[in-house]
Amino acid sequence: MSAAPDSTPAYSYLGPVGTFTWEAMRQVPDAEGAVWRSVANVGEALDDVMTGRSVAAMIAIENSVEGGVSATQDALATIPGLRIIGEFLVPVNFVLVARPGTRIEDVRVVSAHPVAYAQCRRFLESAIPSHGHIPAASNVAAAAGLLESTLAEAAVAPPGITDHHELEVLAEGIGDNPNAVTRFVLVSRTLGLPERTGADKTSVIVELPDNAPGRLLEMLEQFATRGVNMSLIESRPIGDALGRYRFVIDLDGHVRDERVADALLGLKRFSPNVMFLGSYPRADQQQIEVVSQYGDDVFTDARAWLRGILDGGAPA
Amino acid sequence: MSAAPDSTPAYSYLGPVGTFTWEAMRQVPDAEGAVWRSVANVGEALDDVMTGRSVAAMIAIENSVEGGVSATQDALATIPGLRIIGEFLVPVNFVLVARPGTRIEDVRVVSAHPVAYAQCRRFLESAIPSHGHIPAASNVAAAAGLLESTLAEAAVAPPGITDHHELEVLAEGIGDNPNAVTRFVLVSRTLGLPERTGADKTSVIVELPDNAPGRLLEMLEQFATRGVNMSLIESRPIGDALGRYRFVIDLDGHVRDERVADALLGLKRFSPNVMFLGSYPRADQQQIEVVSQYGDDVFTDARAWLRGILDGGAPA
Amino acid sequence: MSAAPDSTPAYSYLGPVGTFTWEAMRQVPDAEGAVWRSVANVGEALDDVMTGRSVAAMIAIENSVEGGVSATQDALATIPGLRIIGEFLVPVNFVLVARPGTRIEDVRVVSAHPVAYAQCRRFLESAIPSHGHIPAASNVAAAAGLLESTLAEAAVAPPGITDHHELEVLAEGIGDNPNAVTRFVLVSRTLGLPERTGADKTSVIVELPDNAPGRLLEMLEQFATRGVNMSLIESRPIGDALGRYRFVIDLDGHVRDERVADALLGLKRFSPNVMFLGSYPRADQQQIEVVSQYGDDVFTDARAWLRGILDGGAPA
Amino acid sequence: MSAAPDSTPAYSYLGPVGTFTWEAMRQVPDAEGAVWRSVANVGEALDDVMTGRSVAAMIAIENSVEGGVSATQDALATIPGLRIIGEFLVPVNFVLVARPGTRIEDVRVVSAHPVAYAQCRRFLESAIPSHGHIPAASNVAAAAGLLESTLAEAAVAPPGITDHHELEVLAEGIGDNPNAVTRFVLVSRTLGLPERTGADKTSVIVELPDNAPGRLLEMLEQFATRGVNMSLIESRPIGDALGRYRFVIDLDGHVRDERVADALLGLKRFSPNVMFLGSYPRADQQQIEVVSQYGDDVFTDARAWLRGILDGGAPA
Repeated sequence: MSAAPDSTPAYSYLGPVGTFTWEAMRQVPDAEGAVWRSVANVGEALDDVMTGRSVAAMIAIENSVEGGVSATQDALATIPGLRIIGEFLVPVNFVLVARPGTRIEDVRVVSAHPVAYAQCRRFLESAIPSHGHIPAASNVAAAAGLLESTLAEAAVAPPGITDHHELEVLAEGIGDNPNAVTRFVLVSRTLGLPERTGADKTSVIVELPDNAPGRLLEMLEQFATRGVNMSLIESRPIGDALGRYRFVIDLDGHVRDERVADALLGLKRFSPNVMFLGSYPRADQQQIEVVSQYGDDVFTDARAWLRGILDGGAPA
Repeated sequence: MSAAPDSTPAYSYLGPVGTFTWEAMRQVPDAEGAVWRSVANVGEALDDVMTGRSVAAMIAIENSVEGGVSATQDALATIPGLRIIGEFLVPVNFVLVARPGTRIEDVRVVSAHPVAYAQCRRFLESAIPSHGHIPAASNVAAAAGLLESTLAEAAVAPPGITDHHELEVLAEGIGDNPNAVTRFVLVSRTLGLPERTGADKTSVIVELPDNAPGRLLEMLEQFATRGVNMSLIESRPIGDALGRYRFVIDLDGHVRDERVADALLGLKRFSPNVMFLGSYPRADQQQIEVVSQYGDDVFTDARAWLRGILDGGAPA
Repeated sequence: MSAAPDSTPAYSYLGPVGTFTWEAMRQVPDAEGAVWRSVANVGEALDDVMTGRSVAAMIAIENSVEGGVSATQDALATIPGLRIIGEFLVPVNFVLVARPGTRIEDVRVVSAHPVAYAQCRRFLESAIPSHGHIPAASNVAAAAGLLESTLAEAAVAPPGITDHHELEVLAEGIGDNPNAVTRFVLVSRTLGLPERTGADKTSVIVELPDNAPGRLLEMLEQFATRGVNMSLIESRPIGDALGRYRFVIDLDGHVRDERVADALLGLKRFSPNVMFLGSYPRADQQQIEVVSQYGDDVFTDARAWLRGILDGGAPA
Repeated sequence: MSAAPDSTPAYSYLGPVGTFTWEAMRQVPDAEGAVWRSVANVGEALDDVMTGRSVAAMIAIENSVEGGVSATQDALATIPGLRIIGEFLVPVNFVLVARPGTRIEDVRVVSAHPVAYAQCRRFLESAIPSHGHIPAASNVAAAAGLLESTLAEAAVAPPGITDHHELEVLAEGIGDNPNAVTRFVLVSRTLGLPERTGADKTSVIVELPDNAPGRLLEMLEQFATRGVNMSLIESRPIGDALGRYRFVIDLDGHVRDERVADALLGLKRFSPNVMFLGSYPRADQQQIEVVSQYGDDVFTDARAWLRGILDGGAPA
């Protein structure tokens, strides 16, 4: 872990070089030329941001094979002052690697992070029926370990691993789900908002006022009445008592979109506790289609109309 | 109908002196000392306002025995520039009157406006089983006519009639429904808003964007998500095609209440056609109880919170 | 009013012959050959049905120039055991009639029911600027009266009047709104349901459980969640206290449509007081378009699926 | 892994003896005396159930430190014929264990499953600042390994570990979150429904018909209109395309509760794909409080009322 000199900004990520999180980091233009701090877990990454050691941290937030998703959501819900400033997708795929010259029929023991091992189980059971498994601390550590000891003949690793280690690929695309993707977010302490691009996402965490039936419905009406679509909703236990949940929500659009801003106002009034996590460009760059009824001008027009009434201007 | 001199404001009402509308007019402090223009129907009354002959007109808007309610709603929906500035309730009750010295057993023929006649039918059939009915143009005309012709021995009239005509009351409280009340509104062309009193009402007329199922529900969510209660909703045919309706709606609260203003914004965005008819003190002076969740300060706080986000201020 | 012999069914209508209600009656196939009882108002008509004097009564329920709409709704809400079995539309139009040989420039005084007079005011003021008005008990009585007295030279009457009286038409289509239509319903005490035609309407009257904001919304969700469209909603004061309302509602569809039946179940559970007024063919014979998601088979399939779960049948 | 003789039912769980899943299994009365099959992951556990090797499998479904939660939800969503028949809670706590005689100051290297290691990081960093970490395949394997090799001096393990292995506890309650609980479900292929206890939960997985804004709201209205509360909702990517989600939902109540059954009917009609995962007693045994408006009798009464209408019985 290299120290960040004063003049160079640092970014924290779940390392080492070659992990899926590292792949996500490579998609961040501003991180080029910066110091990359490899950390061991989400807590450490966010800690770097909170203490100022790093300007931002890349963390998995959905569907990760490296774990940490719930941890991420809970961290964002409880650590004030964090903002998501970007979103990145990394295809989750695995290769089986070995020391140069090894053939697949030579493999007796496979080294793999337990979660990655589970994701490739179907392939491994069929290709190497009687193999043994040695757990590793990370996907990259499994591969790197091949060069340090002969306990295992092969390792499960991310595809880019051969750029960093003298290993050979025995099999590609060995994950059970070929379309698996992990979603990462870049988290910072900045209060500036990323520019509106037209293909944006807004993340919030919201608590319900109480446990009465229909409360979640009431909350969602705040979005529906403004034509705001949700792309993600998850309930997470608040942790102070069983049965108390908060909701992690992703909305289509940017807080600078009138309909999103108005929905957030409604949410803030409704909920005893709303955390705004950020508005940022969507990783898939898909433009949000807004029904004309909810365009910015409709909001502006309505305000002008109301102002006319309040000021005693021309009648409607 | 007296002419209104330049210096004295005029008020139009469905006359003559003694009608229920006249009773409603007597509740208007500003009308004291003004010219009172007696007119024959709602259209004429509103015409006086539109042309400036009168500063305001009193018209029945709900539950009237003098008719005109649908006419009133439709007039308000189609004549731009009108504003409701006050609401008044008049108990609808009837007396049976006759020329001095007449006894009830002398009555053979009863003069009555057809609607009033229908409202007192039960009493008349029981008290004067074999009477005849002569229709009159208004409740007051029925009574006044007794002094001009002897075609009828008695007339159905409003209770105050004996203040204006030399007649005697043969029976009181002869209406079939003793609790009947008519609701009147005072309509003006002013754009100034009556002061907020805490016991206010806001009237609007709204069209739905189209005929799809659930559209009305969507509209009502605009109110529900802001804790705004409706005290009246009526569908009225728009008239351009069968099955197309507009809605006449009364809301609890004043447009200067944050929650009402915000609901109107939502309504304006949702509907292709919203008419703001006015915010004015409720006739029953009942204070609106607002759930704390929807108080003005909640709206102000939410806006401050959002502004903080947009301006890059302190995080939430 | 002819007496109904035991063997011939009787129908009650707001008479006399020639009224708009009479026009509506002419659209009822079953009424052909029956006794037609002419009555004076809605109460009398419904009374005939309740006592068995008539098998059915035709009454105006919306947009009537003969009054009685609120009265009809309130009567249906308070008299148990009534059912709507048919719906009929009558264009509301007026002619100006006179004794044969009269020219329009000879007219000094016009006889008219007060409500009809109001509806034709614009024409009368322009065509006969300085006329006087004599009120009549009904539209037909106004016309018939021309033949009995010379107090008036002309009368406002329904278009068919010349079929029944020796009068001449001075002007046609004199109503201010050329598209005006009155909607009538045929009311009976039968409990049998008219056949489902695919172009049906279901009428109910519903009270809300209490006055809390959002209650009406909750009620409408019962319809929206089943894809049931409303063609009419009106709030009517219940009458026991100011601010308490019931709702008169027309739904698209027949109670034998699964989605309507299910919505009624939801309504019944939600409301302390629901009155089913009937399912009957729509006057406009417009087929209801049901989204496939709410077709009868979808309801049947869902029930089969649930039964499978409850019976321990095949898993879903 | 012992073979299950024909006569003895088998239960599968994430082993070995001593894991949190094993703790959950101990709460199942029917599992006493049965064969317990220790398996390596969720897929293997469910496979045992599908092939009939086991009658049921215990799997973590929420908040697990042993991973597998997303895997569980996705497995339940894609494998037809599975049913949840019970729910169990296990406090997630850890101890630091060592070979007898070891003192905490002797510890240089800690063996731990990577996820458990992350959960105890705060304690470990403070109590043993300069320790090394050797990953293990499971919490129990970490502890058991201490007796087989001397690579590590201590291991992170579940509290019950000393019942099964000759180890000593160096520190208790070392997890960073002292209140952590994992929720497990017992999954079977049976189609019989567990008895209704009054403290039940119903689990479903539902897809939305399409991606239109407000669709989730429409779905939740199916619950709200029947007074059914949700205790859990999570969106999970369907996997066929980015942005397509299914929802994992827990409802308060049993499918034999009328309101739950009716809500499921609504859900089935609304959604192109609903999976009923089961109704089963809640682990916390908390009785569901049902608003009287949604009691079973209300549903029965409404059906009787509707039947009366359809059969032409007594009017409402």
